[in-house]
Amino acid sequence: MTTDTLAGSRTTTTGPGLGAEMAEIGRRAREAATAFALASPEAKVAALNNAATAIRTRAGEILTANARDLGEAETQGMSAALRDRLALDPKRVEAIAAGLEAIAALPDPVGRVLAEWTRPNGLSIQRVAVPLGVIGIIYESRPNVTADAGGLALKSGNAAILRGGSESYYSSRVLVAALGEGLRAAGLPEAAIQLVPTRDRAAVGLMLAMSGVIDIIVPRGGPSLINRVQRESRIPVIAHLEGLCHTYVDGAADPEKARKIVLNAKMRRVSICGATETLLVDRAALALLPAILADLRAAGCELRSDPEVLAIEPTAVPASEEDWCTEYLDAILAVRIVDGVDGAIEHIARYGSHHTDAIITEDKATAERFVREVDSAIVLVNASTQFADGAEFGMGAEIGISTQRLPPRGPVGAEQLTTYKYVVRGNGQVRP
Amino acid sequence: MTTDTLAGSRTTTTGPGLGAEMAEIGRRAREAATAFALASPEAKVAALNNAATAIRTRAGEILTANARDLGEAETQGMSAALRDRLALDPKRVEAIAAGLEAIAALPDPVGRVLAEWTRPNGLSIQRVAVPLGVIGIIYESRPNVTADAGGLALKSGNAAILRGGSESYYSSRVLVAALGEGLRAAGLPEAAIQLVPTRDRAAVGLMLAMSGVIDIIVPRGGPSLINRVQRESRIPVIAHLEGLCHTYVDGAADPEKARKIVLNAKMRRVSICGATETLLVDRAALALLPAILADLRAAGCELRSDPEVLAIEPTAVPASEEDWCTEYLDAILAVRIVDGVDGAIEHIARYGSHHTDAIITEDKATAERFVREVDSAIVLVNASTQFADGAEFGMGAEIGISTQRLPPRGPVGAEQLTTYKYVVRGNGQVRP
Repeated sequence: MTTDTLAGSRTTTTGPGLGAEMAEIGRRAREAATAFALASPEAKVAALNNAATAIRTRAGEILTANARDLGEAETQGMSAALRDRLALDPKRVEAIAAGLEAIAALPDPVGRVLAEWTRPNGLSIQRVAVPLGVIGIIYESRPNVTADAGGLALKSGNAAILRGGSESYYSSRVLVAALGEGLRAAGLPEAAIQLVPTRDRAAVGLMLAMSGVIDIIVPRGGPSLINRVQRESRIPVIAHLEGLCHTYVDGAADPEKARKIVLNAKMRRVSICGATETLLVDRAALALLPAILADLRAAGCELRSDPEVLAIEPTAVPASEEDWCTEYLDAILAVRIVDGVDGAIEHIARYGSHHTDAIITEDKATAERFVREVDSAIVLVNASTQFADGAEFGMGAEIGISTQRLPPRGPVGAEQLTTYKYVVRGNGQVRP
Repeated sequence: MTTDTLAGSRTTTTGPGLGAEMAEIGRRAREAATAFALASPEAKVAALNNAATAIRTRAGEILTANARDLGEAETQGMSAALRDRLALDPKRVEAIAAGLEAIAALPDPVGRVLAEWTRPNGLSIQRVAVPLGVIGIIYESRPNVTADAGGLALKSGNAAILRGGSESYYSSRVLVAALGEGLRAAGLPEAAIQLVPTRDRAAVGLMLAMSGVIDIIVPRGGPSLINRVQRESRIPVIAHLEGLCHTYVDGAADPEKARKIVLNAKMRRVSICGATETLLVDRAALALLPAILADLRAAGCELRSDPEVLAIEPTAVPASEEDWCTEYLDAILAVRIVDGVDGAIEHIARYGSHHTDAIITEDKATAERFVREVDSAIVLVNASTQFADGAEFGMGAEIGISTQRLPPRGPVGAEQLTTYKYVVRGNGQVRP
């Protein structure tokens, strides 16, 4: 158990003291959740807009805290790439504030009547959206996740206990203070959004055991975090597992769309879960392959391919079985020739991660077969897999992309952080 | 580990052999699930109607198998009440067949477009209902659950592995054979509905470990089964926990409705999860209490109450703290006086199980407060809590009532056994 002994940290609690502190955070969260579930849409909008203003006002304070995080990260030998994800600048701070305003502008997800019907005996039944309760969000590194997660929880009427990455601890503290300011100014309970006030990793284990206090755990991070949470949690989890995404170029693909989409799907950003990792090419589309691979090579992408492709593209490295199973999150692409849409569906069923897969084709029937038979959270036709993102879906922001089968599946925005109850109205009915 | 050594059983596998057999069942289920997810609505309707016919044709065979189950149950000392739940007669067999036809008549839940919208960049996004995959259903005692569970899985395009109560083993075997006959006659894979062919309890443990093969586990039974499943399962669970249901009689209640509803909510059937266990009475409605309690007493209900009620009803037994926390599932009712709807909401928040709770009032504003603030899967106004049932909701049948927070919450019918995927259609869009 490591102790947070950094000067200026609000707490240095650990061990049994930490347990008591987490219990107190839980108690406050539950209390806030009850009041918060009944908050009016207007109060929540005001809280989000106030929080955005508070973030702009505190921009200097946020950048100072972030500099402290960055300094410690450098001391601890964090790579430049990771430090870049951690770093804030005035533009990124503005984007965080604007992100909260975008969430504020979304329709209120609570109280929606999802379905209603009347029974022959006159009972009227409604399925009505309600908040989940208390959400525990465990995430890594990037400080903007603190604002997104807090903002989405707020919009959906949930209380949140945020356990951010220890690397972004100081930045997150100021961001949560700004959210709290927004809540207070709107007359809502500040305890609705709390940050675990320690970098002690034992806090994660304590959260996972807070069943009856925390209703849902949302982990957002790498496979080791997700696996730990799934293994240890006694609380239901909304999990985001790996994105081993495929783009399939069909024989009936438009050549220009294929070039443009494959390049974007792989290379726009290689480190996100929606990046394509394996390119499947219909044997009937082999003529399109040289141009596609030339674009990728020019963009600095390493190619690993099956023997048939090696004949066309001698710079490629032979692919092994492992390449079909690897989420590179890097400028590397596995390339395989398949026999039509059947071959593509079969490959994806065998190696895919049920996250996001795309087909490029002008043939409607082929597209519909792919859409029906590929069993993934997101299936695209003639578009880049990099659209696998809550904001791109119009959800304002996302807390992750769920790869589990039960809802919520796919991007998790404010609407997906609600559940429902049934309201049955009668006039004296009894069951025969 | 007990071995199924009964003559005529299809298998006597146990230990490592059972492991291999369960793996083979899983392999067949996965294969069937892939084909089954694409089955047409018409084929599924035909399979269900064929199965109903097969059940009628095999009625004699079903009753013979059921007599064998009952004989063994008696030898093993099962109580008469439990044997009654297990027993089939021609009327109950007909009800099972009719139940499958009712499921057949429901709208097909697969392929529904749950939402659709178009993004400014022209991407069209649809959220489309799809089956969950392979469902493992673990249940106790009553053979009709075999038909309901199999029928709902079939309607929702899921493959099912059924692990019925060992008490109903022979009855369930014939029912599953009839379902298989229905599938076969409709050209659908028979392996879509399989019964675990052993009464060895080790099969349950093996199922709970079949992650990657079984997508969702649905336990249906008593607390010890549910708790075991929640503790052991590495697979997501749709769980049905206890129903500690309340009926609150408000000061503005209609006296006749209150009498009729309370009596029905408690006494219609005392052993179901929707039976009221605690009656809360507004201090302003005390005048209604003597008539309500007289009805209950006349129906054979034992009363446990707080001191204020004892003054009105001397036959009542004083209630202890434990009474407010007990799901009696018996002809016993806890009775408490509360201060208005606030007192009722507070009591339910403290002692309830978030299952089903009802208010009896003619005051609309009070009813709406109760509906909003009581955090239960089902909240009723002026109706009996015994309506907490999938068939009563118009779902044809149910596989249970989920008391978890994430969807599905409340009655789980065919529609609730689906999840969704996102289908995104573009014409060459790439992400900027």
